[in-house]
Amino acid sequence: MLNSVEGSRPPVRETIEFARIVAFTDGVFAIAITVLVLGIDVPEQLPDADLRDFLVDSWPQLFAYFLSFAVIGRFWISHHETFRTLHNFDRRLLVINLVYLSLVVLIPFPTNLLGEYGGEPDAVVLYAFVIGSASLLSWLMLRSALSSGHVAPALHAAAREMSSGSLGAALIFYASMPIALVSSLGAQLFWLTLLVDGLRRRR
Amino acid sequence: MLNSVEGSRPPVRETIEFARIVAFTDGVFAIAITVLVLGIDVPEQLPDADLRDFLVDSWPQLFAYFLSFAVIGRFWISHHETFRTLHNFDRRLLVINLVYLSLVVLIPFPTNLLGEYGGEPDAVVLYAFVIGSASLLSWLMLRSALSSGHVAPALHAAAREMSSGSLGAALIFYASMPIALVSSLGAQLFWLTLLVDGLRRRR
Amino acid sequence: MLNSVEGSRPPVRETIEFARIVAFTDGVFAIAITVLVLGIDVPEQLPDADLRDFLVDSWPQLFAYFLSFAVIGRFWISHHETFRTLHNFDRRLLVINLVYLSLVVLIPFPTNLLGEYGGEPDAVVLYAFVIGSASLLSWLMLRSALSSGHVAPALHAAAREMSSGSLGAALIFYASMPIALVSSLGAQLFWLTLLVDGLRRRR
Amino acid sequence: MLNSVEGSRPPVRETIEFARIVAFTDGVFAIAITVLVLGIDVPEQLPDADLRDFLVDSWPQLFAYFLSFAVIGRFWISHHETFRTLHNFDRRLLVINLVYLSLVVLIPFPTNLLGEYGGEPDAVVLYAFVIGSASLLSWLMLRSALSSGHVAPALHAAAREMSSGSLGAALIFYASMPIALVSSLGAQLFWLTLLVDGLRRRR
Repeated sequence: MLNSVEGSRPPVRETIEFARIVAFTDGVFAIAITVLVLGIDVPEQLPDADLRDFLVDSWPQLFAYFLSFAVIGRFWISHHETFRTLHNFDRRLLVINLVYLSLVVLIPFPTNLLGEYGGEPDAVVLYAFVIGSASLLSWLMLRSALSSGHVAPALHAAAREMSSGSLGAALIFYASMPIALVSSLGAQLFWLTLLVDGLRRRR
Repeated sequence: MLNSVEGSRPPVRETIEFARIVAFTDGVFAIAITVLVLGIDVPEQLPDADLRDFLVDSWPQLFAYFLSFAVIGRFWISHHETFRTLHNFDRRLLVINLVYLSLVVLIPFPTNLLGEYGGEPDAVVLYAFVIGSASLLSWLMLRSALSSGHVAPALHAAAREMSSGSLGAALIFYASMPIALVSSLGAQLFWLTLLVDGLRRRR
Repeated sequence: MLNSVEGSRPPVRETIEFARIVAFTDGVFAIAITVLVLGIDVPEQLPDADLRDFLVDSWPQLFAYFLSFAVIGRFWISHHETFRTLHNFDRRLLVINLVYLSLVVLIPFPTNLLGEYGGEPDAVVLYAFVIGSASLLSWLMLRSALSSGHVAPALHAAAREMSSGSLGAALIFYASMPIALVSSLGAQLFWLTLLVDGLRRRR
Repeated sequence: MLNSVEGSRPPVRETIEFARIVAFTDGVFAIAITVLVLGIDVPEQLPDADLRDFLVDSWPQLFAYFLSFAVIGRFWISHHETFRTLHNFDRRLLVINLVYLSLVVLIPFPTNLLGEYGGEPDAVVLYAFVIGSASLLSWLMLRSALSSGHVAPALHAAAREMSSGSLGAALIFYASMPIALVSSLGAQLFWLTLLVDGLRRRR
């Protein structure tokens, strides 16, 4: 894995091994995205008729699952693109990366709340707060890398563009918190639009 | 890991690093397949006699566990073979891969339903729908790779054959949905035959 | 990772990429061993005095946790040593490896039963059966590799010795099943002795 | 990954492949840190007003989550730095590493207890005991590596400094156990200060 990194830019010469950090981070993303499915309830010993009702009623949980899968997937792509711009790494970045991951790993918790209580403003506000904060940390990671000179000069423009993308996402999720107080559904559809748009624009 | 890729075909020159995508995808498969065991219930504080009854009654959960282990294992082998034909990668493939993974990761949910309600058509239909849809995405991934020129010419025939295999699996699982309405057991035995046959034929 | 493999023996030339199989298998082992902790119950809203009782009473669950951690750790070391003798791989080995992993991943289920019902023969018999069967598959993997010529000639003796070790473990766990009918505790202490001995002998 | 190791120090020549051990260990860390989120309860079918109360009341669980995330993250960084000093590996280290991991993987259990019963001394004592013991194993791993000559001479001083850091952490967590009997909150704030200090000092 280090080879691919070394192939495309100056060698990493830090005390902290780049490859293990990337592997650990990818592992954490892979697990956080998979743990989402554990939030979908499977009731025990329902009679036949009730099973159908249960399945029909479980669409908010499935919606929350796919929403968070897209969110974590989007964060992973972003992280991946962020790390491509780095030719160096230090302990500060490592700590920011861990704080960022602590929010990504937390996502299944607000996701479950959203699946269970999607119609209630509190659940929606908490979800928006966690996602917005993870976006903010993502922005902070890029700013810190830029200001410490860990970004290769040729990639400065790309890193700056990504950092404003992360800041934009943070602001939008934070801005959706008051919207949720008016309409929970409105806030959720708003996020979804953003995600779909984000995926389409970058193709 | 990239080395093994580079050793066997032209170098990957995309903006998205192949190795991280493969590692992330393998991680997601490894976790999804392991999470299956969490669906097998362990009741608390049963008296001795009831434990034996419980174990005897848990065979549908064990059947569902082994069935889905084989299904996810089969998807993993397929994915592995699909990626071997690629010498390139783009964002569209990345998005299709994520949507595909969102269905693979979902598998523990219908698996638990099948283990709990295997005799009821609704559980069987949902299971067939999720597996069929994942197969369809697998086919879409290969078609997209072929049409964007990401498959090495020497491997076109292999990729086409794999894509028709995936389409066939999708059709069979979708076709089993009406069968399940008549006989839940019939539909499940039908899938199992397919899996065993698929594993044997390729040896 | 492939480099390390290639450095120490003739290159792998199979259609199935060795590195991804090893990475996937390691991932599955890492997750199966970590999922064990989920089997230790955390009761909600106990009064203070009851918490101490609960902790004192949870030693069978902790015993089962550490036992299975050692068992899965031992399987992982064995698998690791097995794969070091291979200079080739085929689909039959891949399928045996998947069946083997389906038993390793299942281990948290009998572990939970053992932690909850360690005094009851049925739980002990099931545990011994799953571990014994995984050992048997481990033996089958080595026999299959030897008979298909995938083991480098210089490592034949080592592979044969490992295969008889796996067969021995399988027989011992199967043999402990009738012992469990007489004394559940006896069977469990018997396994533990084996594990400790196995770890010590190899140092 | 092996390349990065070989690039920066004498080649690893042991019978046990370094790269797989590192990958397995990283996988276990990544999963243990992610499993923490499963300890945060999501109640079902609360009325709206109760959801807010629930969220307000769940701060001890969130505190326990972030505390253990920081603890496991700190262990991971330490492990990473420990392995950088090794140019060799043997079975004894492998066994110590597994015992160490069995304590790291156990962390979600005392974390859940702490989140649920943070005000009760027993939960705090158990948490301190598990973390202290993992630190002790970390110290033992370094001592064993030093005494078996697996640390490159140029890195002896670094390894000795790390080993006294691990011993210090072990002693502090063990020392916090009697503090917890007087004040549960005091002991927890004490740990947190240590962690924050540890992260800041190393930057």
